Amino acid sequence: MSEFRGVYPAFLTPMTQDGGLNEAAFREVMEFNIQQGAHGFWVAGGTGESVLLDDAENMRIAEIAADQARGRIKNIMHVGSPTTPRSARMAEHAARAGVDAICCVPPYFYARSDDEIVEHYRVVAAAADLPFFVYNIPKATGVEIKPDLMRKIQDRVPQLTGLKHSPLDISNIRAFAKMGLSCFVGHSHLMLPALTVGAVGCIDGPPNIAPELWVELWDAYVAGDLGRAEEAQDKATTLNLLVDRFGLHATVKAAIGERLGIDCGAPRPPGRPISPEGRAEVVRTLAALGIGSAAVLQADD
Amino acid sequence: MSEFRGVYPAFLTPMTQDGGLNEAAFREVMEFNIQQGAHGFWVAGGTGESVLLDDAENMRIAEIAADQARGRIKNIMHVGSPTTPRSARMAEHAARAGVDAICCVPPYFYARSDDEIVEHYRVVAAAADLPFFVYNIPKATGVEIKPDLMRKIQDRVPQLTGLKHSPLDISNIRAFAKMGLSCFVGHSHLMLPALTVGAVGCIDGPPNIAPELWVELWDAYVAGDLGRAEEAQDKATTLNLLVDRFGLHATVKAAIGERLGIDCGAPRPPGRPISPEGRAEVVRTLAALGIGSAAVLQADD
Amino acid sequence: MSEFRGVYPAFLTPMTQDGGLNEAAFREVMEFNIQQGAHGFWVAGGTGESVLLDDAENMRIAEIAADQARGRIKNIMHVGSPTTPRSARMAEHAARAGVDAICCVPPYFYARSDDEIVEHYRVVAAAADLPFFVYNIPKATGVEIKPDLMRKIQDRVPQLTGLKHSPLDISNIRAFAKMGLSCFVGHSHLMLPALTVGAVGCIDGPPNIAPELWVELWDAYVAGDLGRAEEAQDKATTLNLLVDRFGLHATVKAAIGERLGIDCGAPRPPGRPISPEGRAEVVRTLAALGIGSAAVLQADD
Amino acid sequence: MSEFRGVYPAFLTPMTQDGGLNEAAFREVMEFNIQQGAHGFWVAGGTGESVLLDDAENMRIAEIAADQARGRIKNIMHVGSPTTPRSARMAEHAARAGVDAICCVPPYFYARSDDEIVEHYRVVAAAADLPFFVYNIPKATGVEIKPDLMRKIQDRVPQLTGLKHSPLDISNIRAFAKMGLSCFVGHSHLMLPALTVGAVGCIDGPPNIAPELWVELWDAYVAGDLGRAEEAQDKATTLNLLVDRFGLHATVKAAIGERLGIDCGAPRPPGRPISPEGRAEVVRTLAALGIGSAAVLQADD
Repeated sequence: MSEFRGVYPAFLTPMTQDGGLNEAAFREVMEFNIQQGAHGFWVAGGTGESVLLDDAENMRIAEIAADQARGRIKNIMHVGSPTTPRSARMAEHAARAGVDAICCVPPYFYARSDDEIVEHYRVVAAAADLPFFVYNIPKATGVEIKPDLMRKIQDRVPQLTGLKHSPLDISNIRAFAKMGLSCFVGHSHLMLPALTVGAVGCIDGPPNIAPELWVELWDAYVAGDLGRAEEAQDKATTLNLLVDRFGLHATVKAAIGERLGIDCGAPRPPGRPISPEGRAEVVRTLAALGIGSAAVLQADD
Repeated sequence: MSEFRGVYPAFLTPMTQDGGLNEAAFREVMEFNIQQGAHGFWVAGGTGESVLLDDAENMRIAEIAADQARGRIKNIMHVGSPTTPRSARMAEHAARAGVDAICCVPPYFYARSDDEIVEHYRVVAAAADLPFFVYNIPKATGVEIKPDLMRKIQDRVPQLTGLKHSPLDISNIRAFAKMGLSCFVGHSHLMLPALTVGAVGCIDGPPNIAPELWVELWDAYVAGDLGRAEEAQDKATTLNLLVDRFGLHATVKAAIGERLGIDCGAPRPPGRPISPEGRAEVVRTLAALGIGSAAVLQADD
Repeated sequence: MSEFRGVYPAFLTPMTQDGGLNEAAFREVMEFNIQQGAHGFWVAGGTGESVLLDDAENMRIAEIAADQARGRIKNIMHVGSPTTPRSARMAEHAARAGVDAICCVPPYFYARSDDEIVEHYRVVAAAADLPFFVYNIPKATGVEIKPDLMRKIQDRVPQLTGLKHSPLDISNIRAFAKMGLSCFVGHSHLMLPALTVGAVGCIDGPPNIAPELWVELWDAYVAGDLGRAEEAQDKATTLNLLVDRFGLHATVKAAIGERLGIDCGAPRPPGRPISPEGRAEVVRTLAALGIGSAAVLQADD
Repeated sequence: MSEFRGVYPAFLTPMTQDGGLNEAAFREVMEFNIQQGAHGFWVAGGTGESVLLDDAENMRIAEIAADQARGRIKNIMHVGSPTTPRSARMAEHAARAGVDAICCVPPYFYARSDDEIVEHYRVVAAAADLPFFVYNIPKATGVEIKPDLMRKIQDRVPQLTGLKHSPLDISNIRAFAKMGLSCFVGHSHLMLPALTVGAVGCIDGPPNIAPELWVELWDAYVAGDLGRAEEAQDKATTLNLLVDRFGLHATVKAAIGERLGIDCGAPRPPGRPISPEGRAEVVRTLAALGIGSAAVLQADD
């Protein structure tokens, strides 16, 4: 089985009141997630406000994540950008910073040919020479990586290890698994369905808030306890619905704030903080799930 | 648990050499499916070349299906058409013919308002006054029934019992299940994933060929045997890939012909018979699955 | 220049109070349109509630249209249906009935291969052996006929004369024109734009109500009077916006009713009559356009 | 009539052999375009490899463009980016640099609410306080600005002057024109069609190569010479087809290189230089259009 597997929160990027990276909060929330059993993180990806960060911020995040992990979990660092040289620079830095793997969206904004996508990935993956994950998220990039294109990538990118599959249609997961790829499903409300057809875990934003809900699902699945896994999925999906209703960045930041008493700041504009109605619903939902508050232990306690 | 559940082949419509309904073959293939454990049938739906049949053919099919079933399995008869009066006439006839339930695509070709769809369903369902299933197949009809619209249907159509959900995104199944609906997933390669989030079974074309593959999946699922269910899904999906490659109607007819020695005829034009290459692949695939041939026993044997 | 050109209302199908074909109203409204300068008609197509009619109705309409025209204008009769044999029967009848050309949507509901579409058109066109028009309306059929596929059709269908192009993107009209096809644009609010890149006219529902608005545009265009053509297009588009707001069938029937005092009945269910608010807006719009009412002269007056 | 009107090449960004901004080539090609009659430029937009440039490059381009124009034509400078603060900084700089107007894509990658888009535009437009153009390009950004959303923008953004409308469906241009906006069509093969329904000009990449083809169209249109305008559009569209076939950035750079003998470099990776086959076709097409080569005069000659 892949060494990359299980519950990987697509880690948020906490910000300070003046909109910069909040390193202390980043470390605290990551520590909380590790303690709750998260198996790894997808760092500075979609949930992490990826394309809203400048390169210096992205690089600092790679350093913090690697430092905080201290080998206890796997960090997969996102290095996607619209140009190949910029992504390659970030890939090279991520490797130096000590993350365990990198991931990369296909180049966005302009439609690209298969050849351009493959060559982009070849150069970026080589720059880090770490396990490499494709970030397959057509809603944001306008291009879906299907098995035929993935085979071309696999032919040219020796570092290719897996992918985050974020189309809502999970049909292709079986083909990716049969290609030997570690395929994480990109929607945590579909974690259990995806596991049954070959996925190795899930990567998504809502697990930041309460990774233990999905860890329970994972543990039940690994134990072959179908009924318990279904119950865990059903319970966890409550957080997906909450996030769908009030917005990804706003809801994840507000819910972690409410739960841990850690101010994660606002989404970077044009993103907006959660509405008062949204915050009230967050509090109600956390209480209903029995995860109203929690203390974060220090890693060295 | 719903009385409608399990493996429902979306039943094909066998045709004679001159292109008419082949009643004898219809009965034999249905009997074979019953013997292999199918829990019911979706009759004269998409796989059954639904909109290619004239009303007299559709009505005769309802009569044959009901007669052949003799209460052993459930028949859900399709009555969809572009107009309300025509569908209502078919619904009324289906009830008289003795089927167990009816189903209906939303009106197609012209975009319709929610109100028009709801009223269409109200009139058609009332004409049969049997359990009523929505046929949610946006690829063919251009409209997806989402939970909000389904709630409007539920408010106005007392016969509403469930749906066939054929979008490839299975996310809404959970919501339909929580509304108390018997939701069958419309893609049999997604049967196990869908069961884990609230579906009650699957309705699709490939199970016509070898319902026992999906019955094995269903039995394993009901027994809580996750590993066995995953193996069954993986094996069964081989037939989905075959059908995707060589065409739904052509492949189902050819595969049943090869397996049972029953000539099911060609798809009605513009549909075309399977290519020689396709037929060779059908034979290879059936052999690889160990389902190369089978005898049909008579129901009263 | 093509003998098929100019303003072709996509002719409505007037119905009686009990929902059947209203032959008298059909003749009167057609006559009115001829007197207002319409150059031809697209009969029993999308605006004519095409797929809501049964074959006997469609055949009767072909006879009435041919009889009413008496060679004064061109009738292009629609014969599309989901099956090849049914469309071929209607095509054969249309030719016998005396229409000037036939047209046909690609087979709908099921996705079809290029080969299936081409062969469908070959058989249907041969059955009438009249000038043949492709009805390119992806919103309703799910398939867009692009120049590459049209070339395959042109290679195999000697009767191919032109098309109604109903995608909102008019870019391909230039290519169709360069293939020697008579390309009518399928949206009358885009008539002038389409003429400037190679279209030979427009076919759409709103011109039923006031063909003279588009005839004015056509005459100005033919005379090279750009300013007058733009004014005419701008004025005519008012009716497109009205129809978009209150529904194609409902608005066309209500507006003709208001204008000519001819009851055209309701759309066939699930279609619905116009709302009272819609009817009031129809009256206001007709008055604002100065086309509040009109008398129909008999053809032999 | 708007002071922004006519033919605005979406100006390319020439690059040096090592991939940086080529200021000399930028000035020469802009000068050539001015001499050929271009009425203005859309600077560092889609054709200008917008999102592939870093902020320092974008800012330098604003300075060069303003300096080169010396009031002879209008420069509309693009300042779009995924975040509001970054776009506002670029807007502020553009105003200081002396461009005539700014333009901005809606925030991309993440789906945004109407409120977020409006507020983004409000802040960015205020930062420059110049005439403001919306860049409506759903293929790249995933969001289409339709008249309803544009009205919200108009209510909150006093600098709003117009838009580049790049959906292939030109239907909404009439509504934008009636709102008092200067609407440029974003596809130069649709320039004449768009002018007839209210557009004030076109902004696109192919006119970089031979602005005089579209200036001829514009002059004919303004003179009311429909036949000449149609001929000009037909001729100019040849370049659109060339660009569609071999890629926007690659073809524009290669064609200008061939025509003017100015090396504009390669597209920034993952973009790729034109293929040898593409280059041969470029040469053939320029020759066939009779625009095989040209000398650039210095502005002060």
